[in-house]
Amino acid sequence: METISLEHGSGGLLTARLVQDLVYQYFDNEYLLEAHDSACLPAPAGRLAFTTDSYVVNPLFFPGGNIGKLAVCGTVNDLSMSGARPLYLSCGLIIEAGLPASTLEAVLAAMAEAAREAGVFIVTGDTKVVESGAADKLFIHTAGIGEVAPQTDISGKKALPGDIVIASGSLGDHGLAILLKRHHLQLSSAVRSDCQPLNGLVQSMLEACPDIRVLRDPTRGGAATALNEIAGQSQVGIELYEEQVPVGREVRAACEVLGLDPLYLANEGKLLAVVPAAAAAAIVAVMRSHPAGLDGAVIGRIINQPPGRVFMRTLTGGRRIVDMMTGDPLPRIC
Amino acid sequence: METISLEHGSGGLLTARLVQDLVYQYFDNEYLLEAHDSACLPAPAGRLAFTTDSYVVNPLFFPGGNIGKLAVCGTVNDLSMSGARPLYLSCGLIIEAGLPASTLEAVLAAMAEAAREAGVFIVTGDTKVVESGAADKLFIHTAGIGEVAPQTDISGKKALPGDIVIASGSLGDHGLAILLKRHHLQLSSAVRSDCQPLNGLVQSMLEACPDIRVLRDPTRGGAATALNEIAGQSQVGIELYEEQVPVGREVRAACEVLGLDPLYLANEGKLLAVVPAAAAAAIVAVMRSHPAGLDGAVIGRIINQPPGRVFMRTLTGGRRIVDMMTGDPLPRIC
Repeated sequence: METISLEHGSGGLLTARLVQDLVYQYFDNEYLLEAHDSACLPAPAGRLAFTTDSYVVNPLFFPGGNIGKLAVCGTVNDLSMSGARPLYLSCGLIIEAGLPASTLEAVLAAMAEAAREAGVFIVTGDTKVVESGAADKLFIHTAGIGEVAPQTDISGKKALPGDIVIASGSLGDHGLAILLKRHHLQLSSAVRSDCQPLNGLVQSMLEACPDIRVLRDPTRGGAATALNEIAGQSQVGIELYEEQVPVGREVRAACEVLGLDPLYLANEGKLLAVVPAAAAAAIVAVMRSHPAGLDGAVIGRIINQPPGRVFMRTLTGGRRIVDMMTGDPLPRIC
Repeated sequence: METISLEHGSGGLLTARLVQDLVYQYFDNEYLLEAHDSACLPAPAGRLAFTTDSYVVNPLFFPGGNIGKLAVCGTVNDLSMSGARPLYLSCGLIIEAGLPASTLEAVLAAMAEAAREAGVFIVTGDTKVVESGAADKLFIHTAGIGEVAPQTDISGKKALPGDIVIASGSLGDHGLAILLKRHHLQLSSAVRSDCQPLNGLVQSMLEACPDIRVLRDPTRGGAATALNEIAGQSQVGIELYEEQVPVGREVRAACEVLGLDPLYLANEGKLLAVVPAAAAAAIVAVMRSHPAGLDGAVIGRIINQPPGRVFMRTLTGGRRIVDMMTGDPLPRIC
């Protein structure tokens, strides 16, 4: 099998071979190997968290990751942002006929590794193959199930005036890495996607402070869009301090040259948290002791007025509005 | 909004508008409207069933259904084949830029209607838009969660010699409906896809006989492939009686003209069941009193030898091997 052909998506013999010879090599757990139409799983004790995401990132491989790693981390992170412990993932593949089998294999291997890192099982899946030209190489959908502990209650509606806004690290790395790779731009030092699972970091944060109000991973639309969503859902204002927003040196430089704002670039391994002021220092300390939160920092606070608006206190002492992203500077970022 | 553009997939303002103005109009339930990264759901009491499917059917609309109805029914049916009661669905959309908004709206309306019919909630979703030419109009992924009752234990491994094989109705309707529509072939009377949710039928069957051994919905690869999978997983033989296999008159006629075998055509609203011989008559009676199983019939039996093989007793008294499907006579059937 050198390339994937339409017959591999037929549901017949070649589909069975693709699944047995390739998929099961990488995704081997008792639930998946049952090979039924559905995986049958022990039910978690708490409430369920359930999420899904589609991945159409272009190019498939980029510095710091690939579509497979992204598809696992993205769904693990969406579950984590509900305060859930991620447990089970599904994986749906749409493959363009002619895709090299080695490409698929590299993607599956990355998914398996990311799942291992996050401690989740890929328990059910589906494979479709479409004609050459009917899709662009490979699309992946993952859905995920997590368990929400009884005491956990995290929601975009819970930010209160006086709360503190924290970012878990530098912003804009993923978006810029994709942009540079897609346009074959070279910098003196490489910018890598931050693509990583955040469930371990979130568990540490929740142990330190069960009262975290809001968690959000600023993917498409960047931190600016995620903060606007929180401000809207909680009907509060948000004030950011420009000098405290963590942005990597290369990212800042490249953004200046290219006329981009890192607040609108996607992240795939960072989170924003809104926490009670009394707990902020402790949470930042916990984050900085976790590999996924080494550059965690307070970046702003929740204010009363005007509801639904995000502002930036600039380095020069001014104050500007930070809007939601309109348009799309960079399609197919994830 | 007349067509979907790349900006609708940006994660920014236009994505928010698409979701609020279009998606929420059709999928309105308390879980989805929470609008978090994950839906937070009450955990079911029994074990969980979890499944996923990708839908790339071409054309998007066909007699008897469309990609949206298919995406809901297919995942509801996969859950049902584990004996699970389907509860929650996710919905991931990959849209080709330029898709008319009215097309998307018709698909969402069909998803909402099918979900209502099946009694499930679409609780979480994701929308991606790719450039014109990078996907063929619209792909949908659904994943689903169901609840498996403690006494239910259905598996492809449980068929025993002496058990009876039942089909819930005529075979091949969906596959043939797609083929005729795609190739603009006209018959004197229309062939319609059988696309429908089967969870109600399965619940009735399980109430009549909790000991059902195997359930399988013969989608891609058709009944022949599904029966070969069962024979392989249970390490038994299967013997079918040709004169008892239900095939509609138009489907049989068209298959003869086109040189197709209805056993290899996909179904999207039919199931195969393996049941203890003592319960077969009662189960067929229950099926025939349910709208989704009016033409339910015994089509064969489980035999000892040779393991993994399916045979057909033909009308003329012969016996032929029924293999798994190889190749793909009809790509993008679902």
